[in-house]
Amino acid sequence: MTIIITAFEKSPDRGMGLARDTRVRWALEEVGQPYDVRLVSFKAMKEPAHLSLHPFGQIPTYEEGDLALFETGAIVLHLAQRHAGLLPSDADAKARAITWMFAALNTLEPPILELFTVRILEGDKPWASERLSLVLDRARTRFGQLSARLGDADWLDGAFSAGDLMMVSVLLRARSSGLLDEFPNLAAYVARGEARPAYQRAFAAQMAINAK
Amino acid sequence: MTIIITAFEKSPDRGMGLARDTRVRWALEEVGQPYDVRLVSFKAMKEPAHLSLHPFGQIPTYEEGDLALFETGAIVLHLAQRHAGLLPSDADAKARAITWMFAALNTLEPPILELFTVRILEGDKPWASERLSLVLDRARTRFGQLSARLGDADWLDGAFSAGDLMMVSVLLRARSSGLLDEFPNLAAYVARGEARPAYQRAFAAQMAINAK
Repeated sequence: MTIIITAFEKSPDRGMGLARDTRVRWALEEVGQPYDVRLVSFKAMKEPAHLSLHPFGQIPTYEEGDLALFETGAIVLHLAQRHAGLLPSDADAKARAITWMFAALNTLEPPILELFTVRILEGDKPWASERLSLVLDRARTRFGQLSARLGDADWLDGAFSAGDLMMVSVLLRARSSGLLDEFPNLAAYVARGEARPAYQRAFAAQMAINAK
Repeated sequence: MTIIITAFEKSPDRGMGLARDTRVRWALEEVGQPYDVRLVSFKAMKEPAHLSLHPFGQIPTYEEGDLALFETGAIVLHLAQRHAGLLPSDADAKARAITWMFAALNTLEPPILELFTVRILEGDKPWASERLSLVLDRARTRFGQLSARLGDADWLDGAFSAGDLMMVSVLLRARSSGLLDEFPNLAAYVARGEARPAYQRAFAAQMAINAK
């Protein structure tokens, strides 16, 4: 069955790879599954046809025969459980890798999204600059804790896993804040993720759409 | 093997059940697994012994023999995959239930946590009241989309699942904002979750600690 994902017709980041379809493309490349992409406009994302696939009107979605999923965490986990390459076979190690997926999405991404809120959504508000330092401090705490746990390891728990895929994807969204540069081991960790051939293919595929 | 979780020695909410150990207790009660609790002080949460279990210095953690997990999403999913009661057996239905777990933690909880930020962490800032309405609007959008998807169903996708457990747990954190009252079907959904005997036992168990 052909896998079909959705992506922005025009990504707000113009191809920097920060839109969430890149995570799913990366996972698909890691597990070697071909896929088709259906592009969706901002307008169409809020219309009934797309909302039936994604109740929150976002991308990406994932269709495979009768199965329709949304949420990048769920899609990447689904791929990782069905195909080899993104989760260890040992049950305990698998549970730990999945833990890092949730940590990326529930512990790291929220403060990173607050950086987006303060700089973009509320960038014209009188409180923007004072709040930016508060928000940066909160994100910095999480980055420091993650940096301490990673230490000098290549990946968060043994071999590269779906947990690393998600963590690198989330950390990439903070690059423009400068926070990554404060933690050289995290910057190197993200660079290791970006250097993977599967990531390179995923990045090029989304870029090809946005460069048009 | 005895399951051991950690919880606040004194919860910041004084027993309202909003600390994240309640989610794990609820899951343990749904699947009928006994567990022990180790209480942790705010000070001890930031010390090496606890950080080795939870790199971000939070509760709950989960220990089962040699396996140590953190992140409520990962813990609840681990329990749901090992024991009957929280996930459907059909593979596609299971993937959809897991999707709702991620939606709760990555799409609903971040705007709900922003409500906490604006009211508590930044409650004394000059921008607090103007920002509160912005933050409420963003959360309201998500609540509206969730309400539209739920419609008049009892649960998000067929029978009660780990996805509902997590979504109800996350929505409960927004009760004090009044947002739930704007969406009667979501308020009723949360009430259905709270009425489950397993939730009642979990709530009572955390209350017994915090009432001391």
